[in-house]
Amino acid sequence: MLQNSRAKKVAGIILIILALLSVGLAGILLSNTLSNSAVDAQQANGQVRNFTLYVRSTWINMPNGTKMWAFGYTDNPNGQAKIPGPSIVVTQGDTVNITLNDNKDPTRTQFNPDGDGHTIHLHGLDLPSAMDGDPMTAPGGHAVMQGQAYTYHFVAKYPGTYWYHCHQSAAEHIQMGMYGALIIRPANASNQAYPDTPTFDKEYTFVLSDMDSAMHQTDYDGLYKGGSDPNWTKYQPDYFFINGKTWPDTMMDPEDSINATVGQTVLVRLINVGYVVHAIHTHGYHFQVIGSDGRKLDAPYYKDTLSIGPAERYEIILKLDLAGRYMLHDHAEQMNTNNGEYPGGMITMINVNNPDGSNPVPMKQLMQR
Amino acid sequence: MLQNSRAKKVAGIILIILALLSVGLAGILLSNTLSNSAVDAQQANGQVRNFTLYVRSTWINMPNGTKMWAFGYTDNPNGQAKIPGPSIVVTQGDTVNITLNDNKDPTRTQFNPDGDGHTIHLHGLDLPSAMDGDPMTAPGGHAVMQGQAYTYHFVAKYPGTYWYHCHQSAAEHIQMGMYGALIIRPANASNQAYPDTPTFDKEYTFVLSDMDSAMHQTDYDGLYKGGSDPNWTKYQPDYFFINGKTWPDTMMDPEDSINATVGQTVLVRLINVGYVVHAIHTHGYHFQVIGSDGRKLDAPYYKDTLSIGPAERYEIILKLDLAGRYMLHDHAEQMNTNNGEYPGGMITMINVNNPDGSNPVPMKQLMQR
Amino acid sequence: MLQNSRAKKVAGIILIILALLSVGLAGILLSNTLSNSAVDAQQANGQVRNFTLYVRSTWINMPNGTKMWAFGYTDNPNGQAKIPGPSIVVTQGDTVNITLNDNKDPTRTQFNPDGDGHTIHLHGLDLPSAMDGDPMTAPGGHAVMQGQAYTYHFVAKYPGTYWYHCHQSAAEHIQMGMYGALIIRPANASNQAYPDTPTFDKEYTFVLSDMDSAMHQTDYDGLYKGGSDPNWTKYQPDYFFINGKTWPDTMMDPEDSINATVGQTVLVRLINVGYVVHAIHTHGYHFQVIGSDGRKLDAPYYKDTLSIGPAERYEIILKLDLAGRYMLHDHAEQMNTNNGEYPGGMITMINVNNPDGSNPVPMKQLMQR
Repeated sequence: MLQNSRAKKVAGIILIILALLSVGLAGILLSNTLSNSAVDAQQANGQVRNFTLYVRSTWINMPNGTKMWAFGYTDNPNGQAKIPGPSIVVTQGDTVNITLNDNKDPTRTQFNPDGDGHTIHLHGLDLPSAMDGDPMTAPGGHAVMQGQAYTYHFVAKYPGTYWYHCHQSAAEHIQMGMYGALIIRPANASNQAYPDTPTFDKEYTFVLSDMDSAMHQTDYDGLYKGGSDPNWTKYQPDYFFINGKTWPDTMMDPEDSINATVGQTVLVRLINVGYVVHAIHTHGYHFQVIGSDGRKLDAPYYKDTLSIGPAERYEIILKLDLAGRYMLHDHAEQMNTNNGEYPGGMITMINVNNPDGSNPVPMKQLMQR
Repeated sequence: MLQNSRAKKVAGIILIILALLSVGLAGILLSNTLSNSAVDAQQANGQVRNFTLYVRSTWINMPNGTKMWAFGYTDNPNGQAKIPGPSIVVTQGDTVNITLNDNKDPTRTQFNPDGDGHTIHLHGLDLPSAMDGDPMTAPGGHAVMQGQAYTYHFVAKYPGTYWYHCHQSAAEHIQMGMYGALIIRPANASNQAYPDTPTFDKEYTFVLSDMDSAMHQTDYDGLYKGGSDPNWTKYQPDYFFINGKTWPDTMMDPEDSINATVGQTVLVRLINVGYVVHAIHTHGYHFQVIGSDGRKLDAPYYKDTLSIGPAERYEIILKLDLAGRYMLHDHAEQMNTNNGEYPGGMITMINVNNPDGSNPVPMKQLMQR
Repeated sequence: MLQNSRAKKVAGIILIILALLSVGLAGILLSNTLSNSAVDAQQANGQVRNFTLYVRSTWINMPNGTKMWAFGYTDNPNGQAKIPGPSIVVTQGDTVNITLNDNKDPTRTQFNPDGDGHTIHLHGLDLPSAMDGDPMTAPGGHAVMQGQAYTYHFVAKYPGTYWYHCHQSAAEHIQMGMYGALIIRPANASNQAYPDTPTFDKEYTFVLSDMDSAMHQTDYDGLYKGGSDPNWTKYQPDYFFINGKTWPDTMMDPEDSINATVGQTVLVRLINVGYVVHAIHTHGYHFQVIGSDGRKLDAPYYKDTLSIGPAERYEIILKLDLAGRYMLHDHAEQMNTNNGEYPGGMITMINVNNPDGSNPVPMKQLMQR
């Protein structure tokens, strides 16, 4: 929810909304789009891709039975938030329109009658201010408020790994779950992260996040019982996620663990949407770091443990030459727990089968832990 | 203030001071200078630059009305501390003398009658022990004490971004504000960070810091009311600064925000003088990382979010090809707050005007937040 | 100790142990070894090196008189834990066998009657699951339990800096002290970290660690008084070590400080076995970063302050051209303390003598602090 100054702003926001109504929101959208049309036309040689996102709340089930209130994006207006939100995957040259339809703002309660509003910041895409999703620089200087919709438009230029997140009350809204992966594949090279980087057989995206469950509770209480907002500087996360799951749930899902055959090459896109550094370690394999933040590295390097700061992304290549099962986990060991209980949190598995589908390590023995 | 062993050391310090008086402080300074004179003469081909710094206390005004006691350097003996201290900008080949005149030590109180003393560590300059500012290795094995002065001497060798800070009771004195930027420009290339790196039109230095206001209070109480020192391992910062300012003050100052015309290239020198990692993200632009810690990178790379550990420095180049206003901020979102209230802390703006001075985003809408 | 689910698992573990006894542990070991024998034979051209490690407890003496309970590896079955454990130094091409003999498990108490068991994860060696030391993927899906022994086998392939640690209840067992350095020297190049990297005159290995003494106490109480386990997400370290020592003990030991003659080149292998980022700064010198995680960097770079995330390793080269004494320390200043008292923790010295053995800085003045 908005900070203490929220109450004072209600009058101001109402005035702005009235002003927008008189100008016409459609007019603003049109002018934004037109201003970049010349540039776009040069770069656009792909498909037109349209996405619509909504904002909803949800309850995250923890392995130990805890439930954590959260909110985030979804592409299903009748569903709950997906955390992370739907992955947006496009190809270089595509013309992309992402509409944020704030038709049921989960931050709108009797204690916060206007709701906070939301935006989509396309992190790493380098777009004009009007498309940037920062409410300060957005048309009108505010977020997309309850009852409004706004279309973020871009032509996909640089292949790479990006992400999107809300920038309204960002310390709160990102923590609460408003993020998702945004992938741009290179034109004519769907099995490479960038032109001239290694070809891969399989591809995974791991969204790394951390949450402070006490702050989620405080936030909920603030919105539904009129309490005060969390003090974000006291942030101390107790749950740690890969694609919104904690171990062991991570390794039960074929998209949140790596599953391949010996001899295959795998690309993993690592996205840290959390607020602390995560140090990703792979057992069994070193990996080659080939790119970061949507740009190919001129000097790729090998690591077995990679520190990833908040909001950074890295593309890594694993050549899986050794059958078996291998952990992939954060080496800040306190983050391999579910609220302090090890093992848990930011752990998953790299499962490498023999060509006949067998594996030297029975999957069932992993379930004993 | 000095730790618990301070009381026991008073006798020892008095003996050392007496010894120094008999040897003559000037004699020590002279011998330090002479011992490096042969090397210096080879490298010195620039100007002689003399600086004098004093140590003073101050009260930092927070946007929410809080005041935080602090102390730091100043070049004005009649003024308060400047936090960060005055930027020292010299050119490769210059002969530089920086005198620390400890004529009014703000750590000298009835509960700490000798004061702590202070030094200047020229972080990254690789100087002989006597010029290094570590009190352990300084002449006599102690800091520059109340009533003393000491001249740090060097010939500027490698261009780059450095910083200076006190190394006496460093966990305390750096936290309290004793730091400043130190820039060495390349000879004959004032618009490049290093020879053979991109030329820039404008240049900014952003000193990134973090403070724990409760520890500042404890420190003040220790010195003025006789309480015990903070336990630095409990460090949990609640204020986050660019050049000593928190948002929105950062974006009100033309030196603490980026202000340029579309088409210009900007160099930003990032210096993390804080105790935690800061992950600097730029909206609107990727940047090229061209150097770190006073050395050009052989393999520069592009990022939109850069993790900067304590005491690291990075030079980044932004090519501003897109008019508008764009955030530059820490993506550890809890640090984009003033004591927990978002937005605040380590946020500033990149303002890129059209050639006619206009900007697609009215500045006044940024002030509404 | 194992987490809350430990009690429930006792029956399961007993069943597994019985199963293992019937299959024969020796048989499992034999098959593991055989499965890699073809690969090994190609690479093995060195010596056969056999090591045996045991697990024991110890009390770590802090400079301020505090004692901290801990446990770790030792090569002396009649001694206490060594923290860090014995360095294992082998040469590329060596055939290495490391037997973990869990004959006196320090986690076995009346409140934890089976003990936790232990493993050796050879971090960075990329071994088959059976040799990986992850209890989930180890034969039988469990650690080496009290009364068992297990031999980890590998042929040393890539020169570089690695480490080993327990992976059973890893958040606890690593924190408690179960780690050590593992060095692979290149064949025919004992004075280089990797082929084609600078030759060095002297070599040091600095194992960087951090400990939360309150959690050590909680852990001890859990094992010996039946209390509950620490919640690892509340981790807040108060002691910081280089090779298991805190300053000033670090600088008293010739292996935990750098001691060389002007003109010499020194290799330092930095291993972060802790749970937080450490930012290592050298006074007096920049250093060249030549490798990380057991792989040479194609684009080495110079730094004076290097952020090292959990479990990362870096090889750095210092050319010591300046006599004197210079600090090497973490620049997260709160970590240069012993439980909050500065100076302490992760600080040591680089001592560079003149060719005649003299030093411009008397060692005794360092002792005054």
